[in-house]
Amino acid sequence: MTQETSRTLMSYCPDIKVLDCTLRDGGLVNNFRFDDKFVKDLYQANIKAGVDYMEFGYKASKEIFDVKEFGKWKFCDEEDIRAIVGENNSDLKISVMSDVGRTDYKKDILERKDSVIDLVRTATYIHQIPTAVEMIEDAKAKGYETAVNVMAVSKVNDEDLDAGLELLAKSAVDVIYLVDSFGAFYPEQIERLADKYLNIAAKYNKQIGIHAHNNQQLAFANTIQALRQGVSYLDATVGGMGRGAGNCFLESLLAFLKNPKYNLMPIMKFVEKDMLKLKEEGAVWGYDIPYLLTGVLNSHPSSAIKFIKEERTDYHQFYQELLEIE
Amino acid sequence: MTQETSRTLMSYCPDIKVLDCTLRDGGLVNNFRFDDKFVKDLYQANIKAGVDYMEFGYKASKEIFDVKEFGKWKFCDEEDIRAIVGENNSDLKISVMSDVGRTDYKKDILERKDSVIDLVRTATYIHQIPTAVEMIEDAKAKGYETAVNVMAVSKVNDEDLDAGLELLAKSAVDVIYLVDSFGAFYPEQIERLADKYLNIAAKYNKQIGIHAHNNQQLAFANTIQALRQGVSYLDATVGGMGRGAGNCFLESLLAFLKNPKYNLMPIMKFVEKDMLKLKEEGAVWGYDIPYLLTGVLNSHPSSAIKFIKEERTDYHQFYQELLEIE
Repeated sequence: MTQETSRTLMSYCPDIKVLDCTLRDGGLVNNFRFDDKFVKDLYQANIKAGVDYMEFGYKASKEIFDVKEFGKWKFCDEEDIRAIVGENNSDLKISVMSDVGRTDYKKDILERKDSVIDLVRTATYIHQIPTAVEMIEDAKAKGYETAVNVMAVSKVNDEDLDAGLELLAKSAVDVIYLVDSFGAFYPEQIERLADKYLNIAAKYNKQIGIHAHNNQQLAFANTIQALRQGVSYLDATVGGMGRGAGNCFLESLLAFLKNPKYNLMPIMKFVEKDMLKLKEEGAVWGYDIPYLLTGVLNSHPSSAIKFIKEERTDYHQFYQELLEIE
Repeated sequence: MTQETSRTLMSYCPDIKVLDCTLRDGGLVNNFRFDDKFVKDLYQANIKAGVDYMEFGYKASKEIFDVKEFGKWKFCDEEDIRAIVGENNSDLKISVMSDVGRTDYKKDILERKDSVIDLVRTATYIHQIPTAVEMIEDAKAKGYETAVNVMAVSKVNDEDLDAGLELLAKSAVDVIYLVDSFGAFYPEQIERLADKYLNIAAKYNKQIGIHAHNNQQLAFANTIQALRQGVSYLDATVGGMGRGAGNCFLESLLAFLKNPKYNLMPIMKFVEKDMLKLKEEGAVWGYDIPYLLTGVLNSHPSSAIKFIKEERTDYHQFYQELLEIE
């Protein structure tokens, strides 16, 4: 969809797909240590809410990562997913993410006929796109739907981004995601970038997705800005759970969307039953000043995560430190 | 400024004015019980940050409201403001708000020559505009800058709004505010409304302001959307402090604005020195699910404030209750 035909609040948008990545991006908060009840309840809530995809976690390499140091959703073994979903006799599709360089994809991604997974999403930095293409082709050949998340594009110049997007668009990938890793973008920039992605998508018959972060409390605003331009795959998490400032809130997004298939009520029940408990148990994420500052300065949130973990509150000193790195 | 000439991130916008209403909208959280140190520190921080206006509170009627039940910023007596600012030898202008029907404006708003107040803002519902005009004319005749906040316009039909705005535009008022009292608007709607207000402003040589609420985490996004259309008076509060879900964060806004007169650092210092303490002492505001729900349903936040005060967490039940009122 090009800018000339951008959507309004009253548009009918049957192409929209909502992807819940609470376990995957939220897993970065608690090292993927969700108990089975939480995961089962979320799965049921997503089915009832009409969510299109639920991402269970990463397909991380057990050669690189110690299985004892993470919960099982860092690895998403087939039997672990099946213990939750059985044969997944539902309309909710199942997604996993593979990071370039951190996945034994040839071995760990099974043939689709042997898996309940529907969608494999490859996460890549701009310079890793050639490897990402190989991973996409592998997943496609095995029979999966495929998506690619090009991370940290707020650090990439236009020329490189154009070249990278062309490479991806010529691959077998179905969906290319615009990702605001650092929560640095304003809606005005999302508008321009979404148009860029959508123009390439139109040429190669691909879909575009958006994955936003909430550093400046703009994750939801940026998501609906992208939607307005014609982006159709929308990432969100319950309570905005995700690394650092977190993501677009699934609650806000479902409340916004007018498509009658979506239903907010099951997510409300999930929040009161499971999400409050997770917060009480000590999982910490969401908007806070240090994330605002790294977002505004287009920096990786790691320094802000460290600041908060150390229970520092000397915000002006942190800001000064960030300005000096600039 | 009309849509054809809307601003970009790179525009030079010398007309922008930032109005800090932490004490006024934040006062609705703690019954205006701020200690003098907090107010003095905020005043100094605003001066150093290059903020244009600081709103001290309401000019509420002592006939209607019992002075024993509220902190002094509900009433903003001249001597109380002077105890903080002296003669206000600074570039920061001082603002107060008068509610239609709740202010003895003829008596309590002094002649400007006898006051350190610069700007009198009248808050009105659409049906009260004739009275608001009388209050504006009174303040103008006394020598003040004047603004008017037309509240709850998400409940007003276009025809009534047009008529009301025409009435106001023909008055002596300097600035007309677009107010999203219920946090119900999406940026797309703010874009359309801002254009409507700006078209009237252009005809009558007025300025337009925006006052947003954060029910859907869109207060900042809506504020910068309005700014992009050409709105120049921007309300914000430190930490987003304000009734219910609160307001646009002053931190986010100052970090966003490129005008060299603005400086985020003094606000960072104020947050760590004074704002954290206020939160620790029990003041509660900010985004939460009940506010999302009243925002989405375009309802007054009072039911959500009650829900949170009662420490309820049965969100799905609350949602059901709201849907039944609809």
